[in-house]
Amino acid sequence: MVKYSVLDRTFAALSDPTRREILERLARGPATISELAQPFGMSMPGLLKHVRVLEQAHLVTTEKQGRVRQCRLGPGQLDDAAQWIETYRRRWEGRLDRLGSYLERQKERKGASQ
Amino acid sequence: MVKYSVLDRTFAALSDPTRREILERLARGPATISELAQPFGMSMPGLLKHVRVLEQAHLVTTEKQGRVRQCRLGPGQLDDAAQWIETYRRRWEGRLDRLGSYLERQKERKGASQ
Repeated sequence: MVKYSVLDRTFAALSDPTRREILERLARGPATISELAQPFGMSMPGLLKHVRVLEQAHLVTTEKQGRVRQCRLGPGQLDDAAQWIETYRRRWEGRLDRLGSYLERQKERKGASQ
Repeated sequence: MVKYSVLDRTFAALSDPTRREILERLARGPATISELAQPFGMSMPGLLKHVRVLEQAHLVTTEKQGRVRQCRLGPGQLDDAAQWIETYRRRWEGRLDRLGSYLERQKERKGASQ
């Protein structure tokens, strides 16, 4: 159940374009809240709200340094999210393959009986 | 911008354990709403709400057949979601590699100057 909750938070955190861009920016290096807010033309409280969601998913950590808040990528990884998607796709593609083989066999049988 | 909105809906759809289980179930084959609701011990209207979110993300399609609603996986794929995560991870790992090389060089310099 813990795992579910981590996946829930990870996918929810990724469901917003601003939050995805914050992660992309932080993958290039740490930044302050105001540095993050600037390219979006967003207020600092508005941006902080997104950062909080990323913090709850452990994708970002923040640290107050004097009057500024420094943000960097956190210990949370996207491995579980990537793995869920990959497992699902493999199952689905496996099913399509089996369906394809079945249709192929049906065609051969039809050909043989004609 | 269209692409962003598709990714938003995909990730939001995946942020709930019931919806992820519905997708896993449908990857094994089509099912009616009541067949889907049963293992969760959930009411049909409750389950239908989740199915609607999956429909909006094009991950599921439904079709009314007489008195039952048949659900199957839709044309929406998780390729874009998987690709976003993969690109992000590569960038982040690339940065860690560069940081590792930098620290290695610093260590060598320190060793050489001692």
